[in-house]
Amino acid sequence: MRFVELIRKKRDGHPLEDSELQALIEAYTEGDLPDYQMAAFLMAVYYKSMEATELAVWTEAMLHSGQVLDLSDIDGAKVDKHSTGGVGDKVSLILAPLAAAAGLKVPMISGRGLGHTGGTLDKLESIPGFDVNQSVQRFIELVDTLGLGLIGQTGEIAPADKKLYALRDVTATVECIPLIASSIMSKKLAEGIDSLVLDVKVGSGAFMKNVDRARKLAQTMIDIGASMDRPVRALITDMDQPLGRAVGNSLEVIESLETLRGEGPEDLTEITLELVVEMLDVAGKADDRDEAKAHLRSLLDDGSAMEAFTRIIEAQGGDPGVCTDPSLLPSADYTVEFEALRDGVIQSIDAQEVGIAAMELGAGRRTKEDTIDHGVGLVFQKKRGDEVSSGEPILVIHYSDRQSLDLAKKRLRAAIVIGDQPLKAPPLILDRLQ
Amino acid sequence: MRFVELIRKKRDGHPLEDSELQALIEAYTEGDLPDYQMAAFLMAVYYKSMEATELAVWTEAMLHSGQVLDLSDIDGAKVDKHSTGGVGDKVSLILAPLAAAAGLKVPMISGRGLGHTGGTLDKLESIPGFDVNQSVQRFIELVDTLGLGLIGQTGEIAPADKKLYALRDVTATVECIPLIASSIMSKKLAEGIDSLVLDVKVGSGAFMKNVDRARKLAQTMIDIGASMDRPVRALITDMDQPLGRAVGNSLEVIESLETLRGEGPEDLTEITLELVVEMLDVAGKADDRDEAKAHLRSLLDDGSAMEAFTRIIEAQGGDPGVCTDPSLLPSADYTVEFEALRDGVIQSIDAQEVGIAAMELGAGRRTKEDTIDHGVGLVFQKKRGDEVSSGEPILVIHYSDRQSLDLAKKRLRAAIVIGDQPLKAPPLILDRLQ
Repeated sequence: MRFVELIRKKRDGHPLEDSELQALIEAYTEGDLPDYQMAAFLMAVYYKSMEATELAVWTEAMLHSGQVLDLSDIDGAKVDKHSTGGVGDKVSLILAPLAAAAGLKVPMISGRGLGHTGGTLDKLESIPGFDVNQSVQRFIELVDTLGLGLIGQTGEIAPADKKLYALRDVTATVECIPLIASSIMSKKLAEGIDSLVLDVKVGSGAFMKNVDRARKLAQTMIDIGASMDRPVRALITDMDQPLGRAVGNSLEVIESLETLRGEGPEDLTEITLELVVEMLDVAGKADDRDEAKAHLRSLLDDGSAMEAFTRIIEAQGGDPGVCTDPSLLPSADYTVEFEALRDGVIQSIDAQEVGIAAMELGAGRRTKEDTIDHGVGLVFQKKRGDEVSSGEPILVIHYSDRQSLDLAKKRLRAAIVIGDQPLKAPPLILDRLQ
Repeated sequence: MRFVELIRKKRDGHPLEDSELQALIEAYTEGDLPDYQMAAFLMAVYYKSMEATELAVWTEAMLHSGQVLDLSDIDGAKVDKHSTGGVGDKVSLILAPLAAAAGLKVPMISGRGLGHTGGTLDKLESIPGFDVNQSVQRFIELVDTLGLGLIGQTGEIAPADKKLYALRDVTATVECIPLIASSIMSKKLAEGIDSLVLDVKVGSGAFMKNVDRARKLAQTMIDIGASMDRPVRALITDMDQPLGRAVGNSLEVIESLETLRGEGPEDLTEITLELVVEMLDVAGKADDRDEAKAHLRSLLDDGSAMEAFTRIIEAQGGDPGVCTDPSLLPSADYTVEFEALRDGVIQSIDAQEVGIAAMELGAGRRTKEDTIDHGVGLVFQKKRGDEVSSGEPILVIHYSDRQSLDLAKKRLRAAIVIGDQPLKAPPLILDRLQ
């Protein structure tokens, strides 16, 4: 097969045969197709897209480029959730133990943060001792016995995606719906799950900047799932302002613990409950959604969800003491209040800028090689629609370094707009697709 | 400079700054910009093109990526001709000595054949001893003293183009007018010429399959030339059937020698004369085009052009005896006539298929690594519009290998269409741009 002919075919807008798509993925995974040819192919896909049938074959080839977990020996519905990423998005830390407490099996393989977005693995690693690197066998055992496992992508799972993602990152081919959808779905379906719930975020802090594109991405992933008999649900949720109040690794773990105790912020609690209801529903375990939601709330209130989290922390080598004593988590050297300069109503909090400010403090990575300061970050006391007076704190900055503080403050000043108009809190869940 | 941002900018259809384009070429030439990023950029250019001002800067950066010849010490007008390539296109072998005999200085740097098209260097190398690898200093000396030099592209001239061309070849980004135009113009202008005449071929045997695209390519190159104060003329010429009668290296040298004696086929003679008239005209040395053409014809008839060719062969190490005794050139082991299967008029001779048939005989390269059999090829006795009777030879096949003969015959049978309609010989020169 001459790969240049396949590039030309896609370049000219013709759909590729199944065998051609499989050959591209196989050769690329094996190193027989050079990066420069794949880069040209990806750019052609950026412009010419892929048909639904092409994308199903492409994703399946990526999925089978490495190990596919076999969870068939585990009883119960294996369901995972995936978020397209945002600022302050610590949902996984609450959702996985809650869903496990509700009887689901959650084999969750997560990623790290990059740029303005945080990553579940980084948040988990702020728990002293917590090890996200577990063998596949141990991971399956955890899911079986505790109902959840929380690990990072191994080299064995969807290696084609790992290579493709790294290449897309440096060739301006990240922002492409079929490539995003196949990347997510290949990784998630390699977990051996029966079904999947997607949290597709939209707004300034999300990769999708408008609802139409978010819907299109969600529908594309639902179609890929359907092609492989894996039911997929999607919520389109707001990421115009940070989710919850905390941004930064330890700080988000603390907020997650509060939420697991039923004492979390309303937006974070609501979105988590809605996503777990979807997980139960897609697994055929929620005849009545309102009842299911009420039951989930009781699992927060009675400590069941917290118990599931405590046990997985312990099982993965972490200090379960953090669940009752958050002071065991790393913290920043200093804190300072960030005050409003005028009276008014908060009109907007640009989530992307907030994410970059947190990154500048050390909570995130500018490049893959950067190390993270788990203690630093931001805790908002006011959100969109809240009234503030001049001099009143909007948030608290947790920092370790004076210079990064100045950068972050400057950025936050521009990111938070105070106006005179009263404002209703914006809707959290914008759409629901299946 | 983050190159991924430049790829994204072009991807989204925004023009790049001069400094950005220069940085891309410089970093790529130095090896600081990896092939995969350039591949993605080139594919973005394929879809989003370049504005005239971008293309001028891009080409100039390519041109200055290596050595630019300084011919300012040479008296006279330094003019070259470039053909976009075709089948049976041996024009350079006649044109360069003829233009030199007419007083022009022709610093001609040529290429090799690939696929169905032949290359001037391969044709020259069928002359025993002829060395296309001359030092730049020697090349300049030849142009100065003999009025012409005939060499191949050295590693020092436009190295950016060399790398880019190799990359385009394997990433399906060859067929892109701004990239073709910048490739040609960067190499040609690095020769240190004052002006340039282009022979843009159009038809089945050419890269440009229709006149509109050929015109667009020609105009793009004229504009690039204008941006650097180098007047450029272009003829759009027919390449639907092979040019002249011979296809194959030695055979084309023989035909070139006949044409230099004034005894060549009409189409080849006509196109060569017209191109040299353009060269004289663009150099301000042809007040009256008809007179100029008549003078050129006399230079063929009186042996002046042949003398120029004889002297350059000798100066570049070749055996000048070939000019009077073509049997000194390599020849194929066998010849066989290829006969018409019916009475009629030749409606078409698909030049690309003829080129591939010649390649299959060994006259051309399928891949860059193939070696060439200089003796083999085809000599047509009939062309488009000629009447043939069943059993009458249309051409003679010169071959060395039985198996390749069978392949070539099969291809020629499909390439040559005989019908009942009388047909006027098609126009040779389709347009003239400046």
